[in-house]
Amino acid sequence: MTPMIEPLPPPPSLRPCIEQLGLPQKDLNWELLDQALMHVSASTDRNNERLEFLGDSVLRLAAAEFLMAQYPNATVGDFTRVRSHLVSDQTLTQIAEKIGIEKFLQTSSAAKGDLAARPKRLADAIEAVLAVLYLSRGNLQLVRAWLDPHLAERAQPLVANPEIHNPKTALQELTQKVHKTLPDYRTEEISTDHGAPERFRANVWLGDRCLGSGVGPSRKAAEQAAALQGYQALTANPDPLPT
Amino acid sequence: MTPMIEPLPPPPSLRPCIEQLGLPQKDLNWELLDQALMHVSASTDRNNERLEFLGDSVLRLAAAEFLMAQYPNATVGDFTRVRSHLVSDQTLTQIAEKIGIEKFLQTSSAAKGDLAARPKRLADAIEAVLAVLYLSRGNLQLVRAWLDPHLAERAQPLVANPEIHNPKTALQELTQKVHKTLPDYRTEEISTDHGAPERFRANVWLGDRCLGSGVGPSRKAAEQAAALQGYQALTANPDPLPT
Repeated sequence: MTPMIEPLPPPPSLRPCIEQLGLPQKDLNWELLDQALMHVSASTDRNNERLEFLGDSVLRLAAAEFLMAQYPNATVGDFTRVRSHLVSDQTLTQIAEKIGIEKFLQTSSAAKGDLAARPKRLADAIEAVLAVLYLSRGNLQLVRAWLDPHLAERAQPLVANPEIHNPKTALQELTQKVHKTLPDYRTEEISTDHGAPERFRANVWLGDRCLGSGVGPSRKAAEQAAALQGYQALTANPDPLPT
Repeated sequence: MTPMIEPLPPPPSLRPCIEQLGLPQKDLNWELLDQALMHVSASTDRNNERLEFLGDSVLRLAAAEFLMAQYPNATVGDFTRVRSHLVSDQTLTQIAEKIGIEKFLQTSSAAKGDLAARPKRLADAIEAVLAVLYLSRGNLQLVRAWLDPHLAERAQPLVANPEIHNPKTALQELTQKVHKTLPDYRTEEISTDHGAPERFRANVWLGDRCLGSGVGPSRKAAEQAAALQGYQALTANPDPLPT
């Protein structure tokens, strides 16, 4: 048996970050946390790219567990649509903005100036932090404790509202009411493999604005997924023109 | 502390399945295993749909961990491409065929007759079994012990061969040599969201046959992903016509 070694406390430089982000003091691998806050533009050999790769899967599993525990009566179709929203860069960027992770992120000044890449940079940092929480204990306990409140806040409006059960109907009602027009679906078969989970891709348009896209094993499933993304986008920003 | 209760051994009906599939005898939640082997066509209220939803994420995380541990020197781009192949229905169906899970799967005779849906049915069963292994212990230990040899067998040819590093070049060399023609990429921007991980989708065609498709944050990344799928498909079946 390995003797118990009391882990070192995090260095003072990381304490404000741990506190502000609401990360656990106990068991946290702060050397990995330091790496999770390093954008590739700041260091080519010690950055958060690998942690982000792992964290993407950690997030997906944690979101699945969260939804199944929180909404035992929802259908698998509902789970799939809500999870797809929860794991999106859009949701991760919102979480990143809320907890204010950006000021702790080491980024070159050139990369900082690339505003188009900012949402992805923030989303990646959240995924990297999730990987650190996972690796710190080898299971999802720390991940769920930290992430669940953020997911709950974002899942609740979706699950509570009827649009999740039939996003196409909900989007149609919204565009008819607000824009006096119907959304336009452009759907194509992108794989000839029957049963492929991404056999179809649908984009939903309102005038010149692409509101959202989605994939699915059937034409209908892809359009429902696109409609949910479109509903979210239109609720957040009703302007029909491209932004 | 909860008193230790010796778990019941699996019922005789499940023992041949546990043995043939090489599942662990210890700690396995065999009530969940029984459910994992129930296709929705055999039971609408107790089937493997929810387990498959969870198992999809379990697989993705296990594949990420496996690749990072097994190939510490590979790049994140390599990881992403190989993982995408490992978690595909195509790979899962191969594993399902190899271990012979189909004979243990409860399916209605009507569903059994739907041969186009068979690969997805088998792939879903594997994902459901992975969820059972995960839930049996609350971490990835049983999953990795069972899954790693299957992943190793399928990852090794990809990682060892140069096509993984530049699938477009590898596919082009292959089609030039075998078919005296070049692959044709049809790539479109499917999201206007800069930095979206699925901003572009590429399909790669050889004559009338769609060899593969892929998504990525850039045109190049989507085409590389499509090329890898195409390379795999063409190696498995060099016939240029649709199958």
